[in-house]
Parts: sequence; structure tokens; C-alpha cells
Amino acid sequence: MKKKLNIGLVGYGFMGRTHSNAYRKVGNFFDLKYEPVLKAVCARNEQNAKAFADTWGYQSVETDWRKLVQRDDIDVIDICTPNNTHAEIALAAAAAGKMILCEKPLSMNGPEGLKMVKAIEKAGVPNMVWYNYRRVPAVTMAKQLIDEGRLGRIFHYRAKFLQDWTISADLPQGGQALWRLDIKAAGSGVTGDLLAHCIDTAVWLNGSLEKVSAMTETFIKERTHTLTGKVEKVGIDDACTFMGRFNNGSLATFESTRYARGHKALYTLEINGEHASIAWDLHDLHRLQYFDHRDQSNLRGWRSIHVTDGDHPYMGKWWVPGLQIGYEHTFVHQVADFVEALGKRKPAAPTFRDALETQYVCDSVLKSAKTGRWEKVPKSK
Amino acid sequence: MKKKLNIGLVGYGFMGRTHSNAYRKVGNFFDLKYEPVLKAVCARNEQNAKAFADTWGYQSVETDWRKLVQRDDIDVIDICTPNNTHAEIALAAAAAGKMILCEKPLSMNGPEGLKMVKAIEKAGVPNMVWYNYRRVPAVTMAKQLIDEGRLGRIFHYRAKFLQDWTISADLPQGGQALWRLDIKAAGSGVTGDLLAHCIDTAVWLNGSLEKVSAMTETFIKERTHTLTGKVEKVGIDDACTFMGRFNNGSLATFESTRYARGHKALYTLEINGEHASIAWDLHDLHRLQYFDHRDQSNLRGWRSIHVTDGDHPYMGKWWVPGLQIGYEHTFVHQVADFVEALGKRKPAAPTFRDALETQYVCDSVLKSAKTGRWEKVPKSK
Amino acid sequence: MKKKLNIGLVGYGFMGRTHSNAYRKVGNFFDLKYEPVLKAVCARNEQNAKAFADTWGYQSVETDWRKLVQRDDIDVIDICTPNNTHAEIALAAAAAGKMILCEKPLSMNGPEGLKMVKAIEKAGVPNMVWYNYRRVPAVTMAKQLIDEGRLGRIFHYRAKFLQDWTISADLPQGGQALWRLDIKAAGSGVTGDLLAHCIDTAVWLNGSLEKVSAMTETFIKERTHTLTGKVEKVGIDDACTFMGRFNNGSLATFESTRYARGHKALYTLEINGEHASIAWDLHDLHRLQYFDHRDQSNLRGWRSIHVTDGDHPYMGKWWVPGLQIGYEHTFVHQVADFVEALGKRKPAAPTFRDALETQYVCDSVLKSAKTGRWEKVPKSK
Amino acid sequence: MKKKLNIGLVGYGFMGRTHSNAYRKVGNFFDLKYEPVLKAVCARNEQNAKAFADTWGYQSVETDWRKLVQRDDIDVIDICTPNNTHAEIALAAAAAGKMILCEKPLSMNGPEGLKMVKAIEKAGVPNMVWYNYRRVPAVTMAKQLIDEGRLGRIFHYRAKFLQDWTISADLPQGGQALWRLDIKAAGSGVTGDLLAHCIDTAVWLNGSLEKVSAMTETFIKERTHTLTGKVEKVGIDDACTFMGRFNNGSLATFESTRYARGHKALYTLEINGEHASIAWDLHDLHRLQYFDHRDQSNLRGWRSIHVTDGDHPYMGKWWVPGLQIGYEHTFVHQVADFVEALGKRKPAAPTFRDALETQYVCDSVLKSAKTGRWEKVPKSK
Repeated sequence: MKKKLNIGLVGYGFMGRTHSNAYRKVGNFFDLKYEPVLKAVCARNEQNAKAFADTWGYQSVETDWRKLVQRDDIDVIDICTPNNTHAEIALAAAAAGKMILCEKPLSMNGPEGLKMVKAIEKAGVPNMVWYNYRRVPAVTMAKQLIDEGRLGRIFHYRAKFLQDWTISADLPQGGQALWRLDIKAAGSGVTGDLLAHCIDTAVWLNGSLEKVSAMTETFIKERTHTLTGKVEKVGIDDACTFMGRFNNGSLATFESTRYARGHKALYTLEINGEHASIAWDLHDLHRLQYFDHRDQSNLRGWRSIHVTDGDHPYMGKWWVPGLQIGYEHTFVHQVADFVEALGKRKPAAPTFRDALETQYVCDSVLKSAKTGRWEKVPKSK
Repeated sequence: MKKKLNIGLVGYGFMGRTHSNAYRKVGNFFDLKYEPVLKAVCARNEQNAKAFADTWGYQSVETDWRKLVQRDDIDVIDICTPNNTHAEIALAAAAAGKMILCEKPLSMNGPEGLKMVKAIEKAGVPNMVWYNYRRVPAVTMAKQLIDEGRLGRIFHYRAKFLQDWTISADLPQGGQALWRLDIKAAGSGVTGDLLAHCIDTAVWLNGSLEKVSAMTETFIKERTHTLTGKVEKVGIDDACTFMGRFNNGSLATFESTRYARGHKALYTLEINGEHASIAWDLHDLHRLQYFDHRDQSNLRGWRSIHVTDGDHPYMGKWWVPGLQIGYEHTFVHQVADFVEALGKRKPAAPTFRDALETQYVCDSVLKSAKTGRWEKVPKSK
Repeated sequence: MKKKLNIGLVGYGFMGRTHSNAYRKVGNFFDLKYEPVLKAVCARNEQNAKAFADTWGYQSVETDWRKLVQRDDIDVIDICTPNNTHAEIALAAAAAGKMILCEKPLSMNGPEGLKMVKAIEKAGVPNMVWYNYRRVPAVTMAKQLIDEGRLGRIFHYRAKFLQDWTISADLPQGGQALWRLDIKAAGSGVTGDLLAHCIDTAVWLNGSLEKVSAMTETFIKERTHTLTGKVEKVGIDDACTFMGRFNNGSLATFESTRYARGHKALYTLEINGEHASIAWDLHDLHRLQYFDHRDQSNLRGWRSIHVTDGDHPYMGKWWVPGLQIGYEHTFVHQVADFVEALGKRKPAAPTFRDALETQYVCDSVLKSAKTGRWEKVPKSK
Repeated sequence: MKKKLNIGLVGYGFMGRTHSNAYRKVGNFFDLKYEPVLKAVCARNEQNAKAFADTWGYQSVETDWRKLVQRDDIDVIDICTPNNTHAEIALAAAAAGKMILCEKPLSMNGPEGLKMVKAIEKAGVPNMVWYNYRRVPAVTMAKQLIDEGRLGRIFHYRAKFLQDWTISADLPQGGQALWRLDIKAAGSGVTGDLLAHCIDTAVWLNGSLEKVSAMTETFIKERTHTLTGKVEKVGIDDACTFMGRFNNGSLATFESTRYARGHKALYTLEINGEHASIAWDLHDLHRLQYFDHRDQSNLRGWRSIHVTDGDHPYMGKWWVPGLQIGYEHTFVHQVADFVEALGKRKPAAPTFRDALETQYVCDSVLKSAKTGRWEKVPKSK
């Protein structure tokens, strides 16, 4: 008989859906000791929360997250709310001794993140941040190949996250649907929303960044604010590029934007090592590109690996070779890993502290964009 | 309050999993009048059936499908068993007035399929065959484009289904895992297993085939039989190629094999029309290739459409643009369409009679491979 | 000091240009014992011939190929005229003891080709047919890999040649520009023009075809004839598909058409062996796709080999790695190989006799398309 | 009768070959008023120069470029020598009233380049720098599309030039073959060799850069010098990345390296505009990727345009649709454009002054890499 893991979800937006789906599915595909139970969903708008609960099978509804956090029948608080609410909820949940799963980015900035880290570490509760792209099988496999030493000395790491959905000047900012465009709710623009993903993966794959030099731009300077109905200054960064150096001596080139016409969610990464290189992109997330210089010289070429075999990470749990999985499965994998780690009383990465490092990099990036100078990344560990 | 649609699943293999997943998920993403309920799973091995029920949440277990078919609390019989059992189960289910969802291919051959069609039509029960690839959003979109007349007169339709998993001579035939290699259980080899998919899509997109000329081959002539432990003759076709003519005057080129090294499940299709062409493949199922000759001449090129937008078929139900879905979602879509059609008291394609046409084409193909001549495809409607 | 190889070119169309370019360039890149000299170009229209000679540096002009063939200062007769004139010119050139380079296809049909083969073999003159795609470096490399036994037992060979330039019903047939659409000048349609290329490569890479079964179609039944100004029946095949069996037991699937919207000159080939597979296409002719099952299982993938390195066939003669060559270079390679073979008094492939085999396959294909039956391919050697 | 344009080539390395090939071919494909004549090649090693002259058909040989510059029968001095010799030769050639074609980069640095520009402008001689990638048909077409205003406001321009040929620490520096690795001969590493190409194209397509912030790295700090036989410090940059802002408000992201395993000469560029985006790479130089947001929304996708049609830039001069050209043709196009401009007494871009701008950007990039700050790009016009 499996133990129950009672989930209390705060927020029911896009991420609320991906998480709920993950909780519901994970047990069908992974043999785990704990069974996530959709105990409660919490949102200020009761009607919407009830509709969401109905669709996904949540057993109850709360309209005040403070109440949710105090409920005895909740084991895990899952924070899916806008960035400016993460800290307050997490601190309360930690104080209540709950496990905490928090959407990324961890916080509005590094200092706020550090407070959260200290709180959960003091409380000693299991915690994790939803940097889901680590769990794309192709990306997990990249990690394996790097850890096996196949690439040798690393020279370059480059990543981009290109979107094009905010090009229209008519798009408003703020409110439930567009809080990501509101500096007060989001903390930053593409830096926290997109680059944070790239940074999390990079640090995982290639180690810490030592210093960065960045450039940001806000192409559309004013937008109507959904909540006030007035044209207001846009505070977020529409695009952010940075160069950097990793501790291992390799060079970093990062870019993100919401103004790259033709790209919906093109997260790409490439690592060039002495012996081999790896490339991946989110638009074909089921493939890993791999080049190995040790191949016979006339037969060297980039291999397009269709990561759908039983011996590829996570894929033995799904279908048969050749049949691809998609975006949502990364969340299932993350739940599976969290639950498995829980059974072993081990942390599941990325923890709050892991995510703090990404926060520090983001802070340094935004600072450099203002100072026009190189900025050191503070140590998070 | 949604009506319940009580499912009785027969068989728990690969297809049992894809269907169960679809029943469980469909209500989270599609707003339907009926809610599928996992009422019972049926398999001869009770222990395995119970484990499966436990994993997927089936409420009960049967070990004799005849009992299942007679249960009053079952609305739908879903047949996921080897091909040689489809007819018997379907006939009994029809006699019991159950709705029937049957895995493809419909039957062992055309005459058997015709019997099934007559039975379900006489019983007047809703019915559908699981040719799931129609519900890949990119394929559904191809259908839309064709129906809109964008391609103009059609000249060519070509499809391939290439795999490489049976190349080793050490692979046995038969038994639960490998019944597809056993002529008695499968009826044919790649023709019924792979080409049937290609034919179903082709007829849907391009209309009926008039006549065919085919070639088959069995590369490995003998394999150990899992059930007898003896080396036995291989009765199935390892590869099958056919040419043909559609009623609309276009030419057909079809090929399938399990001996194409490097391809896991590479179902590809291409349609060439007077004005435009379309291509798609299963290894990147979230993309549709589209060429339109009406584009300004110097800017003509194959467009790689990332079929993940809200205005693409089914995709408004899932995530956000750029985030791909996978193989399993085709089954969710098929359940959604079946349930929606049910609410409107309309048939959901492909019906048994639709699937009979594919059966007739397969029969003609296999016959032609023997006679070395062109064979007419019998009319199924 | 290099010996001179005096070229007499008959015809100055598209192929006249590719050959002239090859003769002019070969010595700049290949260190050869003979230096091709552009001695004379021959065409009925003297003005056009002179203009061509002027552009390319031919030293003289003839308007009657019979005179050219009799000139003492000509070593090689290069036949670049429509198919229906190959035989007559070749026979005369052989009688005059000239070396002969003949555009493909060799002849209007097998029997005519046999007469040509007998004539040149009796005359004992060096001879070659311009099936230039053998000399695409990626294709030559495919041959090397196959000869090294890397693919193991071959199961499948498939090739297509897709074009779309004759879809408009307004396009006339015949005359200098469009003789390929005139059955009297061309002998056949896509079979001799496109499939002949595919067959030549296939036989070279995979050995002889034993038997074939084919289908042809003429989509546009009548077209204005350029020479008569009248609407006349179209005699050529617009599309031709055939299945076949090679002597080595592998299966053949071939298709060609000029009605595949979106494809300009898409010659593709793929070979599936027990251990490895190879694929190539003319639209990216500088790449070879290679899949090796012996690679570590989780790292298997199609390698996209950029065939531009010094250790790739012919490429050491050109630029530096990464810098691609194009279509015209295949002719340079063919001249280089012919000249090198000449120095060694060896035949350069494909000889007239090699090309006769392709002719026989074409005949069998066209015959099968009429009879609706399998046809054996006559032996050419 | 065509006028003669007598060429005197200085240097006979890789670029000497590409230029010679271009001079020899251009008249076969382009109808021009001037005919380039290979009058003389100049190199210190007489034997090598003679061998080169023999291969390419140069009429004479010089071993001192000062003599060549003084010859009355020379119209054009083509400088194909290492970077540290460009200025001296160009100044002498200008003083002698010769037209000057100079390999890129123009000079060792901006100030030296400015001297050259002043000299040729004072002399009033036609001049051009061999930034050949402007004449890749796909790139030229990108320029057309931008000039037509199809992209709308530009947001992003990004370019990379990735190679992997210097990763081995055993590779020496300096000498005839490896002067590009020697700071004294090359002036810089990848910045002048690779990024200069990217910058030239970028400024042509997107206008001037206002300011840059850069990072460089020398991964292998010491290498044996070919000329001294001793291990010496490596002075060049192995990798260089920079961010920047164009005058039109768009953001720049540039990177180049010789340490990107798996890439031979991967020059890629992408431009994102309000309405459309364009991408191109040198490894498949015959294709242009084009995305147009004005396409019907569900049919939007990146178009892979096979730039081989008669209505594509330069392509009407070559073969037929679908048949690709290669790297060397860019030089033929550049000669054709230079000769055509000559006939019209107009400058052919990029002139020395155009190339000076690239030099200034390179200087600013290298300076920023040292100062760690943003650097303004001086005006060159």
C-alpha cells in the first residue's frame, strides 16, 4: 500500500495545470512509494478555483493560502503563483513544516531568495524548484555524458531562449494573464522568466558562473496596464544578452528575448568540449545532437539521437522506441524524482539553494546591464 | 454533472496502456459531456490484470471477456488483444449491445472484418477503430488543408513505415510479447501492423484506392517460437511494398518494413498537389511540412510548421505555443472525438466500416504479392 | 609537359555547358597527364555554336557532326545531343576510332544501346557515359562504405527523383528547349531522364536488379508541340514507379515524377543494411547521412556528415573543411577519373556496357508498366 | 571584343586559388565587358610561383611584388598575402595607379586601414576587399528582402563563426601554413579572421554598430612557432564574443571561436524583424531560412528556400533549379560585380572604406575585451 502525499496547490494558471497533470500521471508510469493526492487547490477567486478543482479532481478548495498552509491534511505546498508572492508563501509553509515545491524563478531577487533558503533549511523541509527542463530526457542524457567525461575539457557553453509573443505594442501588461510583463509581479522580464531556465541548466551541466557582462533592452517602452487601464512605463527587460566565464574556464554566451520573430519557445543549448559537443533545443525536445571527434575521421558527423529508447533517461517508463513524449512529461519526471528522493530522505535537485545560485546570476546580469561592467556572481553555497 | 461512460478494457499490453492513459486524461483537457470511468480490465492472467488495474485505477478485474461483455455496468468494450481475437470479442460485444472500440487492424482479413461490420451495424452500437495517427494534430491539419482544396488536383501520395527492431535472427516469434511476429495471432506482418496505419490515413486524406500491385518479403525465414520452443517457419511478411492508383487519379507508393536499420517508427507521408504539397513524419510528429507554389516565387520553400499553436487542431486544449505534445496524445484526442460524437449521436471515424476498407486494401496487397499481378480493391461501402 | 586531349563537343545545351566547364577546370585542381583541349564544338546553328565557342573558348566550330567525327585533330567525341541522336553519332565516332563520352541515357532503348556497345567494343575505343551522380563525393563515399562491408547484408534500396517543373498544362513539348517532353526525341519521359540516374547509382552501389514491376502515368495527356504548333498527344511518362528485387536479395523501391510540387531536383537514395544505413539527397549533395547500429546503443543516431574534408572522396582537391562544392563538380570529377583511367589504359566507369544495364532496366520497367506484370531484366554482361 | 583586365596576383595560398578560379570562370557564366587575364603571379619562392602559374595559366611570374606593382601590363593588383603585408603593398599599388583588390581583413588595425583608405582615395583607383560572403546568393537575397522593408523594424542581429581546427595543443603557430595563428602576421585571431566576415555582412545588412562589449580568450597559451622552432606565447584570440547595439536600435550578439568541436566553418546569421526573420548558415549555404509573420497564422513556419532558381540572385547564370553551387562561386560573383561596376565607373562594395568600418569594429571589440567596458565604434565615413 502506497503512502499518500497530500498536495496543496496555490495558483491554478498554466503551471497549476502542468503540475496537476504530473501528480495525476506519475503513478501510472513510475512505481513509487508515495502516491500524490490532489488534496486542495487555493486561489482567491473561489469560482475559478472550484472549476479547476472539478477539472483536475482536487478534493477541496481554499481561497486563502494562509489557511491552506495551516491545514493538517496537507503535506506539500506547491507554489504556482506570480513571482512576487513566492517568498511570503514559502516562509509561511516552512514555518508550518510543509514540504515546498516552488515555481521558478525562486524569488524576486537574490536577497529575497536567501531569506527563503534560510527559512526552509532551518525548517528542514524537503524542497524543490520547478526548473523542469533538467528532466527533458535529452537534457538529462547530456548531463550523463558530461559526467562520464565524454566531452573532455569544456571550451564553450551557449544558450538562447527566443520567443516572439510580445512584439505587438497593443499587448497590455499586468493582470492575471500578463503578470509576466509587469515588473512588480515578475521582478524582471526575460531574465527571470527565460534566462533563469538557461542558467539553471547551465550551472547543472557545466558548473558555476564566475562573472558576467550583460546588456538588456526594453523595446516597447509603454504599455497599457490591465489593472489600471492606463498606459504605464514598462519596467521589465524585453531582451537580455550576457557573456560570462564559468569557473571551469569555459566561456558563456547567453541570450533571451521575446522579440525574435518566428520562435515560440526556442530554448537552445550547446556545449563544446575537447572531444565532443552536444546540442539540444526545446522545439524538438526529443532529440539530442551529439558530435564525437573520436569517431573515425571520415565518418564524423552530428548524430541526431531520437531519445525515445528504453536505455535513454526516463524513457523506459513510457512507450516504445520512436514514439516521442512532450513538454508535460518533464513535470512528471520531476515529481517522480522528488518522490523517490523523499523515500530515500535525500534532497531532490534543484533545491531552493540550487535555485538561489540562478537568482544570484540573474541579479549580477541585471546589475551588469546597468553598470556596463563585468560583475562577479556571489557564491550561493 | 457529467454522465459516466463505463469502460471495460480487454487486454493490458502496450495498447491497454495508451488507452487507459487516454481515458484518465481526457477530462482534464477536454470539456465533455461524458466522463470515461475505468470500470474493469479483463485478462486471463488474474495477477497481471490486478497489477494493471492497480496501476491505472480500474475498479475491477475479469479473467473471462465473455463475462465482461455480459456485465450490465459496462458501456464500452475496448478490444486491445491480438488480432486473431478481435472478431469473436466484437461479435459478442455487439450482441450484448455494447459500444465497441477495437484496436487496429480491425480483423485478420476482409471477410472476417465484413462479418464484424455487419454485426455492429445490425446491433446499431457506436463503434470505432484505433487508427490513432489521424489525431496527430499535424495530420489532422493536413486533412483540413486538403478539404479546403489548397492542394488542388492530387498527383502523388506516398507513405512509408520503417522500423528496424526484428533484424536479429535471434529474436523469437509468438507469445505475449511477440505475437505480432506470429502469423496465427497477427494475420500478417508489416501489412496489417504498419501499412494498415498508412492506408487508413491515406484513404482518409486522399480517398479510396482502386487497385494495387505489391511485393512482400520475409527476410528471416525461421525463428524459434516462444510458445513451442521450436524453430518454426515465419509466416508473416517482414517487408511489404505496393504501388497503386487512387480513385482520384493520383498515384500511390507505399512501403513498410521492420528491416530498415536506423528507423524506429518512421511513419512518413507526403501528398503532392497541383498547388501545394504536404509532408509529415512520426519521428517529429509535432511538425508539418508545407509547400505552397502560390507563394511569391523567389520566396517559395518548404515551411516547417511547429504545430503547437492554439489555432492548430486540438492544440488549444494543451499548453502554450512552442511546447510539443507526443504520441500518447493522439489517443486522448480519439477518445475526446468519440465521446463528443456520442453526445451528438453521430459516428466517430474511423468506424468499423471505415476500417473494413483498410482491411480490403491489405487483402488486395497480400494477394497481389502472391499473384504478381495488379489486384482491384473490393468496395467496402 | 602534359599530353593534349582534344575534345569535340556535339551539342551546346545544358550538358554542353557542364562538360565544357569540367574540361576547363579539371587541370586547375587535379594533377593529370592529359590536358583537355576545347578543340571544337558542333551544332547545326552556326551562330549559336560560335557564340558558345566564344564563351567557352572552343577553338573551332562545326555545323555537321559527321565532319567533326572525321577530323584528325579530335581525340574525343562528347555527345550532348538529344537521346535520339546518340546512337548514330556514337556509331560513326566508333568507326572513326574516337574515344566517346556520351550523355545519359545511353540510347533510346536496350537494343539500340546494345548496337552501340558492340560498335565501341569492336572499335576498342575508350568510352564513358555521363552518369555524373556517382561522382558526388558523398555518393562515392557511400560506395566506399558499402565496399568495405560496413552495411552487412542489404535489405532495402530505395530511390526517388522528384521534380515539379512540368505541372502546368500550358507548357509545350518538343523543340530545342523541351525535347525531353517529346517521345520521339527522348525515347521516354522520367524513366530515361530521371530514373536512369537512380538505376545507374543503384546498380553501382548494390548490384544488378533481377526483376521489376512498374507503373507509369501521363498526367497531362496533350500539349502543344513547339515544332508543329499543334496540340499533340504526350507520349512520355510523367511519372514512373517501380518495385524490384536485386540479385543480392534486397528489395528495390523506385519512384520518379515531374509532378511533385515543391521538389526541384530531389534525387534521394537510401540503403538499409544489417549493421548500417546510408541516405543521401541531391538538394544537399554535400552531406551524407549515416547510421551505424554498432555505435553504443544510447548514442545511436543518424550522423549528418558534411562531406568536405580532405579525407573525403575528391575533396582534398578542393577547398578547406566546411566549404561545400556543388553540382558542377561532379562533371569535373568524372573528367578527372576518365583521364586518369586513360593514362592507365583502363576503362572508366560507367562504360557504355555499364550504361546498357541501366537501359535494360528502363526497358523492363516500361514493359512492366504496360503488361502489368513482373518483368525480368535481361543480362547486359 | 572584350577589353582585357590584366591581373597581378600577390600570394598563391588558399585565397590565391579561389581568386584565380574566379578570374578564369567568370567569363563563362557572366557576359561582361572586361575579360580578366591572368598576367602574373608573384611570390618569393620562384619555384612555387611557377608551379602555381603553370596550374592556373598565369603568363608570368614575379618574386618581388614591388616589381609587379611597377609593371605597365598590370591593371589590377590582387593582394592575397598575410595581413601584415596588405598595407605596404596596397600603398605602393595605389601610388602606381593600380586598381586594388585586397583580401580581408583590410589591415592589421584601424589606423593602418585608414592610411590605406586615404591612399587609394587620393589615387582614385577602383578598389575592393574580398568579403566574399556578401555574394552567397542566399545572403544577397537576405539583403534584398531587408532593403524591400519586408522585415520591418529590426530587433536582433546575431552571428556566429564556429570552427574547431586549432583544438590540438600540438598544432604549431606561424609560417606559411599557419600564419593565421601568429599575432605578428595576423594582427588578431578569430576577430580579424572570422568575426570580420560576420561584421562585414552585418553592417551591410543592418547598418553600423554604435558600441560593443567583448570578451576574448586564448585557450592554448603557448605553441611551437614554425619559424623559430621554439615554444612561444600565443598572441592571438582563440575565441571572441561580443554584444553590441546597432544605430537602428537593434541588439547584436556575435561569437567566433576555433574551439567549437563539430563545426568546420559554421558561419551563421539571423535577423529578427517585426514582421519577418531570416537565418542562414555557411554549412548549407544554398539555403535561406525565412519566416514571415504575415502568412496565415496556422500556416506560419520557417521556409527553407533552396536558393537555386533563376529568379534568385546570381543563380540565373548557373545551372537549373535544384542544382546547388558552392563556396567558390562567391568569388566569381564578386569578380563579376567588380568588373560590371568598373564598366559603369562605379565603386564595387565593399570598398576599402567599407572595410575600414569592419576594422574599426574589430578594434573596438579587442579594446573592450581588454578594458572590460563598452567601447564606442569610431565613425569610418
